[in-house]
Amino acid sequence: MTSHIEDLNPIDAADRPTLDTGLLEEVLLGRWASTRREARAAAADPALHKIEGQTKEEHRRRVFDQLQLLVEKGAVHRAFPSEYGGQDDHGANIAAFEELVTADPSLQIKAGVQWGLFGAAVLHLGSAEHHRRFLPGIMDLSVPGAFAMTEIGHGSDVASLGTTATYDAEAEEFVLETPFTAATKRYLGNAAVDGKDAVVFAQLITAGVNHGVHAFYCHLRDDQGSPLPGISIADDGQKGGLNGIDNGQVAFDHVRIPRTYLLNRYGDVAADGTYSSPIESPGRRFFTMLGTLVQGRVSLTGASVAAAKLGLIGAVTYGNQRRQFNASSPTEEEVLLDYQRHQRRLLPRLATTLALTFAHEKLLTKLDDVFSGADDSDANRQELETLAAAIKPMATWHGIDTLQEAREACGGAGFIAENRFASLRADLDVYVTFEGDNTVLQQLVAKRLLSDYAAEFSDADAGALSRFVVSQAQSTVLHRFGLRRTIQSVQDTGDERRSANWFKQTEVQRSLLTDRCRQMVMDAATALRSAAKLPMKDQAEVFNRNQDALISAAQAHTDVLLWEAFTEALSEIQDTGTRQILTWFRDLYALCRIEGSLDWYLMHGRISTQRARTLTPYVNRLLARLRPFAQDVVDSFGYTSDHVRMEVASGAELDRQEEAQQYYRELRASSAAPLDERVLRQREAAATKKSRRRTA
Amino acid sequence: MTSHIEDLNPIDAADRPTLDTGLLEEVLLGRWASTRREARAAAADPALHKIEGQTKEEHRRRVFDQLQLLVEKGAVHRAFPSEYGGQDDHGANIAAFEELVTADPSLQIKAGVQWGLFGAAVLHLGSAEHHRRFLPGIMDLSVPGAFAMTEIGHGSDVASLGTTATYDAEAEEFVLETPFTAATKRYLGNAAVDGKDAVVFAQLITAGVNHGVHAFYCHLRDDQGSPLPGISIADDGQKGGLNGIDNGQVAFDHVRIPRTYLLNRYGDVAADGTYSSPIESPGRRFFTMLGTLVQGRVSLTGASVAAAKLGLIGAVTYGNQRRQFNASSPTEEEVLLDYQRHQRRLLPRLATTLALTFAHEKLLTKLDDVFSGADDSDANRQELETLAAAIKPMATWHGIDTLQEAREACGGAGFIAENRFASLRADLDVYVTFEGDNTVLQQLVAKRLLSDYAAEFSDADAGALSRFVVSQAQSTVLHRFGLRRTIQSVQDTGDERRSANWFKQTEVQRSLLTDRCRQMVMDAATALRSAAKLPMKDQAEVFNRNQDALISAAQAHTDVLLWEAFTEALSEIQDTGTRQILTWFRDLYALCRIEGSLDWYLMHGRISTQRARTLTPYVNRLLARLRPFAQDVVDSFGYTSDHVRMEVASGAELDRQEEAQQYYRELRASSAAPLDERVLRQREAAATKKSRRRTA
Repeated sequence: MTSHIEDLNPIDAADRPTLDTGLLEEVLLGRWASTRREARAAAADPALHKIEGQTKEEHRRRVFDQLQLLVEKGAVHRAFPSEYGGQDDHGANIAAFEELVTADPSLQIKAGVQWGLFGAAVLHLGSAEHHRRFLPGIMDLSVPGAFAMTEIGHGSDVASLGTTATYDAEAEEFVLETPFTAATKRYLGNAAVDGKDAVVFAQLITAGVNHGVHAFYCHLRDDQGSPLPGISIADDGQKGGLNGIDNGQVAFDHVRIPRTYLLNRYGDVAADGTYSSPIESPGRRFFTMLGTLVQGRVSLTGASVAAAKLGLIGAVTYGNQRRQFNASSPTEEEVLLDYQRHQRRLLPRLATTLALTFAHEKLLTKLDDVFSGADDSDANRQELETLAAAIKPMATWHGIDTLQEAREACGGAGFIAENRFASLRADLDVYVTFEGDNTVLQQLVAKRLLSDYAAEFSDADAGALSRFVVSQAQSTVLHRFGLRRTIQSVQDTGDERRSANWFKQTEVQRSLLTDRCRQMVMDAATALRSAAKLPMKDQAEVFNRNQDALISAAQAHTDVLLWEAFTEALSEIQDTGTRQILTWFRDLYALCRIEGSLDWYLMHGRISTQRARTLTPYVNRLLARLRPFAQDVVDSFGYTSDHVRMEVASGAELDRQEEAQQYYRELRASSAAPLDERVLRQREAAATKKSRRRTA
Repeated sequence: MTSHIEDLNPIDAADRPTLDTGLLEEVLLGRWASTRREARAAAADPALHKIEGQTKEEHRRRVFDQLQLLVEKGAVHRAFPSEYGGQDDHGANIAAFEELVTADPSLQIKAGVQWGLFGAAVLHLGSAEHHRRFLPGIMDLSVPGAFAMTEIGHGSDVASLGTTATYDAEAEEFVLETPFTAATKRYLGNAAVDGKDAVVFAQLITAGVNHGVHAFYCHLRDDQGSPLPGISIADDGQKGGLNGIDNGQVAFDHVRIPRTYLLNRYGDVAADGTYSSPIESPGRRFFTMLGTLVQGRVSLTGASVAAAKLGLIGAVTYGNQRRQFNASSPTEEEVLLDYQRHQRRLLPRLATTLALTFAHEKLLTKLDDVFSGADDSDANRQELETLAAAIKPMATWHGIDTLQEAREACGGAGFIAENRFASLRADLDVYVTFEGDNTVLQQLVAKRLLSDYAAEFSDADAGALSRFVVSQAQSTVLHRFGLRRTIQSVQDTGDERRSANWFKQTEVQRSLLTDRCRQMVMDAATALRSAAKLPMKDQAEVFNRNQDALISAAQAHTDVLLWEAFTEALSEIQDTGTRQILTWFRDLYALCRIEGSLDWYLMHGRISTQRARTLTPYVNRLLARLRPFAQDVVDSFGYTSDHVRMEVASGAELDRQEEAQQYYRELRASSAAPLDERVLRQREAAATKKSRRRTA
């Protein structure tokens, strides 16, 4: 078998390694396996499933009732303090939350609004008194609430929100105000119908000073459900998906709230209007308050990976059953997944889904470390945020891209609601722009990479910097965010005899992916250095001219993160066959990423032209090699038909194909089989030829 | 100005060329301008507009009523014979049909099913007698009908359909039969509710011979709307989009239809069961019958381009109004479209939309030539089919990709139904797999390129072939499908001084795009030559190993087609400024395609490493140069607010931004402005420093 592996020739079925699906399922379930199993058992309940084609009113009612069911099942309190009936278990909470996406993404996100945003804001930004007063109603859903951060005019740039909360020392109240239309709160889940209360983000102004954005507790509606005086609410109406959630708009016209409604963990106002905060720097204070939002990004990452898995289960299963065209046999058509292009469409996405599963597990572990207090240092919080900002865009785009490719790979069947691809894709679409617009998050990653790099060279003169670029010396600072360099840069000697083996070497892959990211950051840093002393406007222009390159660097960084997570996971798999197959999938992930930026490697001399030309044929052979294991891998995702709920994955197609083949077999064996006109014509032509020959 | 153009530095506003939007609108409306204007006027009618959030039942009823309105407006009969009240005008018919997409894609596609598929099948495959009998009811919608081709088990491979129509000479009837479940007709518009009749595609069997797939007229329902005996109908239910159409499933259990219900233009059965056809070859006959389907592909192309235009109108307008972050000024935020990444997201798609508009115009002209009889030679029909097979995938993928990018570029607002992006995208999603699955069509193009190439070399020995590959001699045969080579291959001398100018040269672009396609076809042909003498199974395997490369060649071919159409269109623009700006957009299209396959050019030595590194910076400068013209271009699309119907394109955002800026201006000017805490801290720090100095 060794020689087969070396040159990647096809392996005979008998020689193939075996994938232990039970083992892989455990590996993929990861650290919170039992929580995930519990959550999946809950999500299997038909009462929680999306009914396709409901009106938004019906769907909203259904989802609200489902939230009540989740409360009854005790499914949504894991992150809350044990003194209020929670479990103080942040990692498990997110893991369980992610699995809800298989039931209905609207259910997931509405639960996220209630307990992950509204509730979490009270938990993380409020005091013990706030907890005592507000958490019970939030937890048992007697007080549905909105998370009123985003405004029509400001989404990603939270620091520039227009809503104000001005302290009136005489009345000991804050006055909430929407000073212009663009400051209207928008797209708030729970606002249009269900929300009784809200956490409102507004500029805190006291004693003539604006202390920046803070969070305030606020009542929205009275017990009859009517908006309170000064509060205007409008319905955002129909959306591209997630129509089980009642998104709406809220504006404030001199709405007075008690001083104590300021969620005051990171900033407080005394009765006389004096402001105080445990964090002196307004910038750091702001980012600390916003840091609690990272949970949303982490959970969207996991949910997107789960949805991609559902899509791949459907498309791979169907691709293994549906037949089309009969190029290789006159009587039997090819199974879709035997086509090279079909493999190209599905298997790299399967590999990326595995990579993302492992990367997300690391991300969730870090979140748990921070929120459990195991390591909630500033540095670790920042790492968590950067990691989330890198992986969330990749995962959410991957989710909708994979669902789309899966839908197309099933043709017209993929478009019918009974197969869910389009529905899931529509619901997950907004994941790429909410809880941090993906493009903005990627810039955040790029800036972190840059500042990390700059920190190392802040004292270095230009000469030292250029020497660094030339010698590519060991950089310890770049370690933290995956920018660690390999012990020795891989030299592409272009040795053709070893071409096939070169790309599959772990150290070659590591070096190629890591060096690219580091070089891109260095190139961008060099381009930006010149701007440091320019006026603000020119500085911004130089930065903008490099924006695209910076975002590409962030993407390259994410490629490294995923590859590292995948590679680390391999080392923990003891079973030889499973590890071998997963290693091939890791190779596929790495080589498709490298193939996608092959021009960069060529332009920068990291891969020789000769070698580069062997890459795509190598990937193609890898696809053919991995094709027999695709079904095993999707079966290892551990979802049952209660989660998948797709006709294409039900086995019905296999039954239909077998019935059709049986029909034709019997027909061919019978005397009733009609003769094909083409065959008739061939026979006639032969007879004519024969008779002509006889005549001649 | 000339020097600016040479080096692509930014141009001062005063020196900028001017885009004549009226002229560009005319150019883009093209040959059927007046028909398009008429159709747009019709589509502006609110009665034809999609209402977001309707149930499928409400939506289906509305769309059916809208079809009635179209009949009353005389909007859908242009392609039918003048003797029945039509205009025999095929090009104008498609042009008008495409514009309906702005009202509601469901309306467009349901109209397409009724008149473009069901009606067109009777028109093109039936006899004068069929026309007399069936066309009036089809045209006035008193007989809604289905186009019963696709089966659950067979979509793209129409030749392998399972449904049989067996002739019974005694009764002079055909017996329609669904012999197994996989042969059930599926996804048929008009089948679930409205269809009274259908055109059914089935294997024609008479006198013990199967003559292949033919079309039959068939009644589905009685006057009360109940399925006729032997006919089972099921509803396909909710879909990912297009829910105004009642797609359904139909199965036949010994359904008898008169002999004369065979649409017998290309194949007939006499009363005694004798088969006859004006086309002797069963293969050519089959493809001739299917040739009438090309209209669907052409019209989906045009509709997708129209939808992409709507998306770009929304995103570009919003990108010119919405502000976010204030990197370049302490008081004013940047307009989204000033960000390089935002330009990268929208402007290349705008350039491709222009290229597709011109390519589609050529396609539609060819369709008109074929269907009007101006040139309906076999060769021209084949060219039309190949052209449609090349452009339809590109256009339909571009449509949903552009709508998605536009939606993301508008953030959360892009997801709300009032902005239509997600709704249009959901409806157009299925365009990429129906009327010819895009991937299958691309293979059809690849095969045509190969066979065209092989025809030239069928007699050549291996030596001659390899000589050709080396010398790259002029090939006349490759002309027909855009494979014409340039007079002289461009040599990349890597002269740095001319780098910036090199890429913008028309002949350089032509040579780069064309050479790539030709080389890819040659490489694939070389790889496949060895397989010619192998057994069927092995041949199929060799072909499959090259499938991905072949599809890439088809894509490269399409790049050329679009570039040529764009370049030809430029030569017809007399206004210097408009031509200059459009030329930059053509350059952007070309260079983004080249950038996307830069690795190929590097590996094949067509572009030097040195030169390649100048490409992306050049594209970035081109983006900055084109950015001021983006709004003019989308304004030239000629759609009014009745077609666009998006809040983001309404100007409301500009009003909100101005209101907010006014508020802050007034606040800053007043004494009531709160001091920013950061400013306060700076002042305090400065004061402390000062007092320390004094103390010291």
